Amino acid sequence: MQSLDFYREAFLSFLAQRTVPKAPEGLYDPIAYILQLGGKRLRPVLTLVATELFEVDYNKALPAAMAVEVFHNFSLVHDDIMDEAPLRRGQPTVHEKWDINTGILSGDLMLINAYECFLNYEGTMLRALFELFNKTAVAVCEGQQYDVDFEDRMDVTLAEYLKMIEYKTAVLIAAALKMGAIVGEAAPKDQELIYEFGRNLGIAFQLQDDFLDAFGDPKTFGKQVGGDIIENKKTFLYLKAIEGSTPENKALLEQLFVSHPEDPTTKVATVKQIFESSGAMEATKVEIAKYTEKAFAALEAIEAKHDGKQLLQQFGEALMVRLS
Amino acid sequence: MQSLDFYREAFLSFLAQRTVPKAPEGLYDPIAYILQLGGKRLRPVLTLVATELFEVDYNKALPAAMAVEVFHNFSLVHDDIMDEAPLRRGQPTVHEKWDINTGILSGDLMLINAYECFLNYEGTMLRALFELFNKTAVAVCEGQQYDVDFEDRMDVTLAEYLKMIEYKTAVLIAAALKMGAIVGEAAPKDQELIYEFGRNLGIAFQLQDDFLDAFGDPKTFGKQVGGDIIENKKTFLYLKAIEGSTPENKALLEQLFVSHPEDPTTKVATVKQIFESSGAMEATKVEIAKYTEKAFAALEAIEAKHDGKQLLQQFGEALMVRLS
Repeated sequence: MQSLDFYREAFLSFLAQRTVPKAPEGLYDPIAYILQLGGKRLRPVLTLVATELFEVDYNKALPAAMAVEVFHNFSLVHDDIMDEAPLRRGQPTVHEKWDINTGILSGDLMLINAYECFLNYEGTMLRALFELFNKTAVAVCEGQQYDVDFEDRMDVTLAEYLKMIEYKTAVLIAAALKMGAIVGEAAPKDQELIYEFGRNLGIAFQLQDDFLDAFGDPKTFGKQVGGDIIENKKTFLYLKAIEGSTPENKALLEQLFVSHPEDPTTKVATVKQIFESSGAMEATKVEIAKYTEKAFAALEAIEAKHDGKQLLQQFGEALMVRLS
Repeated sequence: MQSLDFYREAFLSFLAQRTVPKAPEGLYDPIAYILQLGGKRLRPVLTLVATELFEVDYNKALPAAMAVEVFHNFSLVHDDIMDEAPLRRGQPTVHEKWDINTGILSGDLMLINAYECFLNYEGTMLRALFELFNKTAVAVCEGQQYDVDFEDRMDVTLAEYLKMIEYKTAVLIAAALKMGAIVGEAAPKDQELIYEFGRNLGIAFQLQDDFLDAFGDPKTFGKQVGGDIIENKKTFLYLKAIEGSTPENKALLEQLFVSHPEDPTTKVATVKQIFESSGAMEATKVEIAKYTEKAFAALEAIEAKHDGKQLLQQFGEALMVRLS
């Protein structure tokens, strides 16, 4: 096995080599733009590592890794339109740099391009990848719709919230890994285990993101701390706090989560205080630990190269911060 | 062979059977809505007929026919957003009945659902269908982009225009037929011939649409006669007229095609007069006849059941009006 950086570089050079100027420019330039904006390339790296884990050359997995990355970027382009987001990775979003119609059409072509990558495979491998990709793409769309629906609903349950983040975030990470295992011709049992590793790690990661949004260190957390609270996002912390609060605090929380004060300082402080006093903060930490442990247990059970498993363990640990 | 109506009914009952309410409703209801709005179902019918032409049961082609129809409707949903169209088949468009975000996300899922249909096939048939569908989907997106680009360009050539309508309209008709031939396990030569039949017929049909937009009978032409002229659309008629006009008429035409008069009556009449005097009207008729003949020659050359070829001939003739 090589290092994570090695696989990232290998993917980036494959990507650069495939990104050639094409006509009509109005359609292809935005695709090249978003694909070259950067990002950590976590998903394609996972695909390559998963293939090598089963002792197959990562080069064979490059098209599948590309499909995952192109699909991920397709979803960013369309989500950014829906969220009216002006920036992505510190740069103008596609619909901001061009226009909404360009974002829609370029996004559509990226989805098609993602499928196209699988034509590099044959027979049952093509079919298995295609099937998994389809199932994943459907789930990602459904997750996005649930996320939109939850904004207007006051009765979202914890189970519904967990399903939403699983669909919106975790299944693509799981699929990236399983695709690598398919290309690596892993046994079905190991394919399922690596999927479970990714799925649980993805859920843990999203819950950690919710947690850090409220309790993270402003110096290391990439986004504005308290952002979810300001935007009245009903995260795991909020739903757990509603569940565990006194009737007074529950009423106060619900009232705060429809307010939009000009200066949110007091709101953020009050909400964080209820998150703590209700036990939601602790419960979220417990939940994150639970999913992280499940992920690592699945990884442990895989029958594969020891150093490959270590690399994925290392990847997972780097993703999950130690929560004090 | 059965009648065209028979295949249409068979497709409609397959569609109805597959359209079951699913959650999240905000995502699936718009899909069911657009798919049940009607339309002539030309493309899926062509797929079924093409399969039976090669003596394979049309039932085997129903999922491929579905893929074509779902893809076509996906493109309508996204195009209607881009064109800000309020109505589709006399009913509110998806983004009008719901909102733009719903149109984007439901459209995305329809594109995924279209691909999903191919999982009903195996081995080389799956691969051939998948490959053709991908190539077609890319062309449709490129055609849409060229159409957008041409709005702002004053130097569009006839060749570029023909390529645009081929990509935007004709390749999907061609692919619908070829998919039927693939499911019908036709010889490669016959697969190409039926593709050429559809491609040429599709171009002829689009040119006819351009022609009728200016010179059609207001009683039988579905849309507003003169609509393209009012919207300054650079159709084949316009490009041909620019090519064949005196310098004075060319200048007048170019000037009229940037104007937006409140009452367009005089503009429409003047433009039509130039279309005639420049020879563009006649040249367009000749072009339509040329593509129609090419289509029927390809059909004729196919080695297949005589009554099936007759049915496709009948289909083509019904599509093409006799231009006086």
